[in-house]
Amino acid sequence: MSLDQVLARIDADLDQSLDRLFALLRIPSISTDPAYKDDCRTAADWLVEDLASMGFEAGARETPGHPMVIGHGGEGGKHLLFYGHYDVQPVDPLNLWKREPFDPALEETPTGKVIRARGACDDKGQLMTFVEACRAWVAVNGKLPGRITMFFEGEEESGSPSLVPFMKENADELSAADVALICDTSMYDPETPAITTQLRGLLGEELTITGPDKDLHSGSYGGAAMNPIRVLSRIIASLHDEDGRVTVPGFYDGVEELTDELRAQWDALGFDADSFLGEVGLSVPAGESGRSALEMLWARPTCEVNGITGGYTGDGFKTVLPSKASAKISFRLVGQQDPLAIRESFRKMVEDMLPADCSVEWHGHGASPASVMSTDDPAYEAARQALSDEWPNEAAFIGAGGSIPIAGYFKSILGLDSMLIGFGRDDDAIHSPNEKYHLASFHKGIRSWARILAALDT
Amino acid sequence: MSLDQVLARIDADLDQSLDRLFALLRIPSISTDPAYKDDCRTAADWLVEDLASMGFEAGARETPGHPMVIGHGGEGGKHLLFYGHYDVQPVDPLNLWKREPFDPALEETPTGKVIRARGACDDKGQLMTFVEACRAWVAVNGKLPGRITMFFEGEEESGSPSLVPFMKENADELSAADVALICDTSMYDPETPAITTQLRGLLGEELTITGPDKDLHSGSYGGAAMNPIRVLSRIIASLHDEDGRVTVPGFYDGVEELTDELRAQWDALGFDADSFLGEVGLSVPAGESGRSALEMLWARPTCEVNGITGGYTGDGFKTVLPSKASAKISFRLVGQQDPLAIRESFRKMVEDMLPADCSVEWHGHGASPASVMSTDDPAYEAARQALSDEWPNEAAFIGAGGSIPIAGYFKSILGLDSMLIGFGRDDDAIHSPNEKYHLASFHKGIRSWARILAALDT
Repeated sequence: MSLDQVLARIDADLDQSLDRLFALLRIPSISTDPAYKDDCRTAADWLVEDLASMGFEAGARETPGHPMVIGHGGEGGKHLLFYGHYDVQPVDPLNLWKREPFDPALEETPTGKVIRARGACDDKGQLMTFVEACRAWVAVNGKLPGRITMFFEGEEESGSPSLVPFMKENADELSAADVALICDTSMYDPETPAITTQLRGLLGEELTITGPDKDLHSGSYGGAAMNPIRVLSRIIASLHDEDGRVTVPGFYDGVEELTDELRAQWDALGFDADSFLGEVGLSVPAGESGRSALEMLWARPTCEVNGITGGYTGDGFKTVLPSKASAKISFRLVGQQDPLAIRESFRKMVEDMLPADCSVEWHGHGASPASVMSTDDPAYEAARQALSDEWPNEAAFIGAGGSIPIAGYFKSILGLDSMLIGFGRDDDAIHSPNEKYHLASFHKGIRSWARILAALDT
Repeated sequence: MSLDQVLARIDADLDQSLDRLFALLRIPSISTDPAYKDDCRTAADWLVEDLASMGFEAGARETPGHPMVIGHGGEGGKHLLFYGHYDVQPVDPLNLWKREPFDPALEETPTGKVIRARGACDDKGQLMTFVEACRAWVAVNGKLPGRITMFFEGEEESGSPSLVPFMKENADELSAADVALICDTSMYDPETPAITTQLRGLLGEELTITGPDKDLHSGSYGGAAMNPIRVLSRIIASLHDEDGRVTVPGFYDGVEELTDELRAQWDALGFDADSFLGEVGLSVPAGESGRSALEMLWARPTCEVNGITGGYTGDGFKTVLPSKASAKISFRLVGQQDPLAIRESFRKMVEDMLPADCSVEWHGHGASPASVMSTDDPAYEAARQALSDEWPNEAAFIGAGGSIPIAGYFKSILGLDSMLIGFGRDDDAIHSPNEKYHLASFHKGIRSWARILAALDT
C-alpha cells in the first residue's frame, strides 16, 4: 500500500474521473418531479454498474419512491459506511442558467476552473470524490483498504420519505460499520478543509391564534373585540429577553459551553463576522449578548419566526379585524436540548399568555435534537490530519448552524457517529441556477479521501 | 300644511312607492364593475326623471366615472341638502342568493315583511324613503316644505373617486344649504330610531420592516442575523399598555370625554355587550379598562392591526429567516384627534424602536378625522323629536364606530353639519347575499322624513 502511488494514479486519471462524473451529471435525476422518475432509476443503475466495475457487490434496492444504492466491498480493517445522494434539485428558473443544466462542462472563472451543471456539487460531484478515491485505491493496490459500504440515496432533495423506513429495515446490514462518512457539506473556506462535528437540531412549531369566530369590521368592533394579531405579536415579542436569550422555561437545559479546545480551534479560524453579515446587509450580530457570531451560529440555540400571517395582506387597505393569526416558529437546538420537552414548555408558555376569548391551535413540524459527534474516537483526529496534509490550511472541527438529518439518523437508528467531510464552497449555488463545483474541490477532494482511507486503515 | 294629510297620503300610496322602488332596484347599477356602466347611467337617468316629475330641476352631471344626480326644488324656509347613493355592491357569490338579486320582491319573514334585492337597503331603499316623503308632501301641499337639494352619488360602493373633486367644483351650488341629511345608516335597534352624531375617523398606515437584504436560511444565519418579524412583533406588542391604552405619544390629545347628557342617553339604550360580543364568539370587552363596550366602540380611539405578513406563509414549513415583514395598522379616531399629528408621532415611535440594521418603509392609507356634529343647532333636537313621534321608542343621538367619509367632506368642503338618519337594521345583509330592507323600514322611514320635514320647516 502506497499512498503516493494512489495520489499519483488520481492525478493521472483525472480526465477519466471527470468523464465518469459528467456521465452521471447528464442524467437529470430530479427526485421531486415525477416526470424524472425513470432518470432517477437510470442514475441508480449507473452507480450500481460503476461500483460493480471496481469489485463492489452492489444493487439498487426498491423503496416506495426512488431506489437506494447499496454496495459492499473490501474486507478486514475498519468498516466505513459512506453516504451520498444521486438525486438533484429542480432547475427552474431555467432562463437564468447560462448553459443547459444537464450538459456539464469545465469552465474558466476568476476563481479557477469549475464544473458547471445541476448536481456538480450537490451531491454528484461530492459523492464521486469518494468513489474515485476508492477506484484509484483498488487500481493501485488491487483491493480496498478495508470494508466499505456505499449508501446512495435518491430522495434527499425531496424530503427523504423512504430513508428512515429503509434504514430501519436494513439496520443490521448498515450498522455493521464502525463509522459513517458523509460527503454533502462545505469546506470552512477554499483553503481550509473541515470536519463538521456538531449540527444544530430543529424544532418546528406552527400556531394559530383565534379571537372572534369570524372576521369583523374594525369600525364596528374595533376597541371592543380582541385582535389575534395583537395577541400573537405579544407572544412573539416575549420569546426573547433584552439580552437576546430565549425565554421559554427550561430552554437552556442541556445547552453546553464550548470546550476550551474547540473554542481555540474556532478562534483560530479567524471568522470575519463583519464580512459574513455585511454580505446580507447587516452589521451587528443579533443574538445573545456576550457571544461571538460564530458561537451564535454553530453552538447556541435560537428561536426564529419563519413566517407570520393574519388579516388582509393584499394590496391596499381593508379595515378587517381578523378572526385568526398564525406563525411558523422554529428553534435551532444544540448539545443535549430535548426538542419534545421544549415543545411542551413552549406550548404551555403560549397558552398561559392567552387572554380571555383567545384559543390556540398547534401544528408540530418535526423535532430533531442536535448532532454532536464525540471526537474522542481517534478516527476524527486521523481524518483531520489527513485533510490538513492535502490543503493549504490545517483542517478544523467546525459546527454547522443547519440540520443534516442523516447524521442524526445514523446515530439514532444505526448507533454510528458520522464524519461530515465535504469540499463544497459557499458560493457553489446549490439549489440555484448555474450550480458549480470547483475542479480543485473535485480533484483535491478525491485526493483527500485517499489520504483519509490511508489514515483510517492504519 | 297638514302633516296628518301627508302621512295619510304616504300610507295610501305605499304600493305605488314600492313599485317605484322596485323599478329602481331592477337596474343592476354595480358601480365597481365596468360591465354595468350603462346600468349606472340608467339608474341616474331614472332618478332625474323621477325628481323632475315632482317639480325638481334635476340633471345627471358628468364625472370621469358614473354621473352625479343633482336636483333643486322648493323655495323659502330651511335649505336641506339630501345625500344618498344609487350604486350598489356586486352580487357574488351569486349561488348564495335565494332569488335573483335584481328581481325585487316582498317576502314574509319571522321578523316581518321584507323587500329582498341587492340595494334594497344600501342605498336605494333608504334613498327612496326621502324621495317618497317629498313626493307625498308635494302631492298634499302642492310644493316642498322649503328648499331641498338632492345629491345622489353613483360611486359610493367603488371608493367615490369623483366625489371630492365634484364637491369642490360645485361647492357654491351645494353649500347654499343649511344642513345636510344623509340616509345611509341604521337604527339603533328595530324599535329605536337614531341620529348618528359622531363617527370615528380613520388613519391607515402600512409599514415594512427590512432586516437582511435578502431572505436567509435560518440554519446558516439564525442567531446572528436580525429577524424583521421579531422586530415588527415587538413594535406591535408595544402599541398598547397593560390597560389597553394606545401608547403612541400624544395619541389622546383631542380625545374628549362624553358629556353627561350623551352618556345618560347612551346608558338609556341598554346596550347588551354580552350579546354583541357573544354573536362573534367573544365574552370580554378587549379595550381600555374602565370603559363600557359602547364607549369603546363609539367614543374611544383604537389601534388595530388589520394585516400582517412576513416570511413563509404557505403549507408546511420553510426555515427561512426573512428579509422583510410588514403590517397594516389603523387607528380609529375620535373628538379632535389630529390624524396627521398621530401619523407623525407613530412613525417616530416606530423609528425610535428599530434596532441596528433594520429600516422601515411607510405607506400611508388615508387620514380622516372624526366627525362630531354639534347638536346645538335646534334642528337636531327637532329631528330627534320627529323620529320619536313615529317609532315605538324615543330616538337617540348615537355614535358609530366606523367612518362615513361623506359626513367629513360635507363639513370640510361645504362647511355643513350632517344629520345621519337611516332606517336599516344590523341584519340587512348589505354587501352580502340576500340583502333586504324591512317593509317597516321603508314605510315608517318615509313617514319619518315627512315628520322631519315638518319639524325642520317650522
